[in-house]
Amino acid sequence: MLERARELIHFKRFVQTEFYPSFLYTLKWLVLAIFIGLLIGSASAFFLFGLQWATDFREEHLYLIALLPVGGFLIGWVYYRFGESVVKGNNQLLEEFYNPLRTIPLRMAPLVLFGTIATHLFGGSAGREGTAVQMGGAIADQFTKWFKLKPIDRKTVITLGVAAGFASIFGTPLAGAIFALEWLMIGRVRYESILPAFLGAYVADYACADFWHAHHTHYHIPFIPDLSLANVLWIIPAGICFGLAGRLFAKATHIWSELFKQGIQYPPLRPVVGGAIVAILVYLVGTTKYIGLGVPTIMEAFDAELPWYDFLAKIGFTSLTLGAGFKGGEVTPLFYTGATLGNMLSGVIPLPMALLAGMGFVAVFSGATNTPLSCTLMGIELFGADSGVYVGLACVVAYLFSGHSGIYGSQVIGSPKH
Amino acid sequence: MLERARELIHFKRFVQTEFYPSFLYTLKWLVLAIFIGLLIGSASAFFLFGLQWATDFREEHLYLIALLPVGGFLIGWVYYRFGESVVKGNNQLLEEFYNPLRTIPLRMAPLVLFGTIATHLFGGSAGREGTAVQMGGAIADQFTKWFKLKPIDRKTVITLGVAAGFASIFGTPLAGAIFALEWLMIGRVRYESILPAFLGAYVADYACADFWHAHHTHYHIPFIPDLSLANVLWIIPAGICFGLAGRLFAKATHIWSELFKQGIQYPPLRPVVGGAIVAILVYLVGTTKYIGLGVPTIMEAFDAELPWYDFLAKIGFTSLTLGAGFKGGEVTPLFYTGATLGNMLSGVIPLPMALLAGMGFVAVFSGATNTPLSCTLMGIELFGADSGVYVGLACVVAYLFSGHSGIYGSQVIGSPKH
Repeated sequence: MLERARELIHFKRFVQTEFYPSFLYTLKWLVLAIFIGLLIGSASAFFLFGLQWATDFREEHLYLIALLPVGGFLIGWVYYRFGESVVKGNNQLLEEFYNPLRTIPLRMAPLVLFGTIATHLFGGSAGREGTAVQMGGAIADQFTKWFKLKPIDRKTVITLGVAAGFASIFGTPLAGAIFALEWLMIGRVRYESILPAFLGAYVADYACADFWHAHHTHYHIPFIPDLSLANVLWIIPAGICFGLAGRLFAKATHIWSELFKQGIQYPPLRPVVGGAIVAILVYLVGTTKYIGLGVPTIMEAFDAELPWYDFLAKIGFTSLTLGAGFKGGEVTPLFYTGATLGNMLSGVIPLPMALLAGMGFVAVFSGATNTPLSCTLMGIELFGADSGVYVGLACVVAYLFSGHSGIYGSQVIGSPKH
Repeated sequence: MLERARELIHFKRFVQTEFYPSFLYTLKWLVLAIFIGLLIGSASAFFLFGLQWATDFREEHLYLIALLPVGGFLIGWVYYRFGESVVKGNNQLLEEFYNPLRTIPLRMAPLVLFGTIATHLFGGSAGREGTAVQMGGAIADQFTKWFKLKPIDRKTVITLGVAAGFASIFGTPLAGAIFALEWLMIGRVRYESILPAFLGAYVADYACADFWHAHHTHYHIPFIPDLSLANVLWIIPAGICFGLAGRLFAKATHIWSELFKQGIQYPPLRPVVGGAIVAILVYLVGTTKYIGLGVPTIMEAFDAELPWYDFLAKIGFTSLTLGAGFKGGEVTPLFYTGATLGNMLSGVIPLPMALLAGMGFVAVFSGATNTPLSCTLMGIELFGADSGVYVGLACVVAYLFSGHSGIYGSQVIGSPKH
């Protein structure tokens, strides 16, 4: 009798101290995730439409590439004049997360949106995830002010925004949620914000893909062999190559950025010079396959033999573009680098070409951003569950071999890699 | 010129300080993973065959259930006489991981193997992952001695063994690798051992499934709707139910275990009494569906309406069986609980029955063991990539609502859940 009474009290205490707070917490973040997620998902859809327009328009009016220095000056001048407070981009989000000083200015969102569309319109080589993540972080952080959230909630809001931006731009809600948790610290995943990250990612992906019908590219790996011991052994050298490519990408961007900073004092002039070099290079190589997002080449890497140097050319074009101060992200170029490198490796490694392209697609990204789990989930969301074991180990090996730094200089190391 | 020389030195330093150590590390753990993984995968295959034999033999000779108290005494006595050093099972692995004192005795492996087969032969209600994880941990830890590994490597060896055991017993290499990283600390994933965990999981899964052809059950979710905002809202109450069920399971096992310890001083007598109660209950309810692994009922939960109380009955039978000192794991009964609870919820929640069964399958497990990412990957590996968003959020919500404890009392809290 006494026992039962005690159990009942236990149950009451559980409801009061554990269930009820969890329930309120869920409700609060559900409401916030719906607001923020719908906003960010819509911004991503708008951005994807703009990007599609800019890419199509450029391919129809190739003379625009000659104007890349002009576009560069425009971007450089606008950021110099209005964007000093947001010019650090993704690293700024990371720094605010670790060391909160002030709300991320909302202008980060329109500036990076404009800068990225302009970069792509005039033929720079860049991606889109940086833009999505920055729009996500900036939009989400406004809610800290509007809803008067506590400092601890602010970290969660930023995490939610990053998850929402990433998930909606690639159409990969699970990878987006885990990316936000994994990105913030090398070698560790923190679960404090796991529910808000999932909710934000889901709502934003829904808003972008189902409500606005923004289109995501579909990739297909027609044949995936069973996992044998020999295949495990072949994944490892492939993963090492992907990790080194990720490292090279990060290094190259960093070196170009330093060179431009040291060589040219007046910031708006940097993308002018960088844009001129890129435009001349495009003219010399005679193809536009290395500029823009490069989605057609990524898709080709899954079923046609490509020149072996494609991945190096893309690293060169992108690191030059971004190092000079153009806007965009690194991730789609990392996909490009990985898919073409995987394509090239299929001449040496006895795995199907499409599978190696898919492994490279996510693994180079894993190496450069130190987010192996998110990249594994992205591989599964894009290429199906059967690819999981291949992309998983490739991402882990690439993570291990890319060194303790990546494209985000402000990432903090949570655990050594081994 | 000077710049290039400096870059070359940089490159040399990178090779010496980063690439070469990573390469040696990979090689070392590859060799260890092949040895350990083949051994553990073979042990898992042997265990699966034994389990199949025990289950078939019992179903053909139902009078064996009347002998459950005898089987209980046998298990209790053997553990009392020879197993004092290994009786804490999974919690012992956790404790050795946090606070390494001495090598895990190899006898843990044969004892838990014998104990689990006997439990299933005589009709106890239990699982198998505890057995696999303990065999994995015990076998792997012997290599610490044989290869004279350093203390820091020992943690990695235990992680590798747990990953190998879990991966091979369920045929889910990704979930196994992440389970080992996630299980050791609530709310945090540590990447120090990420490569060894992956390699061990892959090799063991290969050995068990492809080399020994051990059979894994296949589950199928025929229809998965697109993710709408309404569906996101429906996943949440389902996840809450799964989390509470996981909590109830953990509580019930704990309460039975305490009752037996307080009520019966002589340990071998506890499973005798517990076995007698289970045997009488089986006779009274007139079905064997609540004992053993319960795989047929789990499969039924995906396509037929089941009695609403099935999940409660399974919690009762399993907590009684394990609390009394029988051996086995909790995970397959957790799958059972979740799948039948999901089946029941499909009467209230407008999602397909098979999908809810699949969500419950992994989410109750997520709540009881605090491993949401591993459970999400398991869902994807068992039910396909399309189920990912549903099982993912269900696992996260269940994790959040199961309280800060689980079936493993020795788990350390790394981060609060929110």
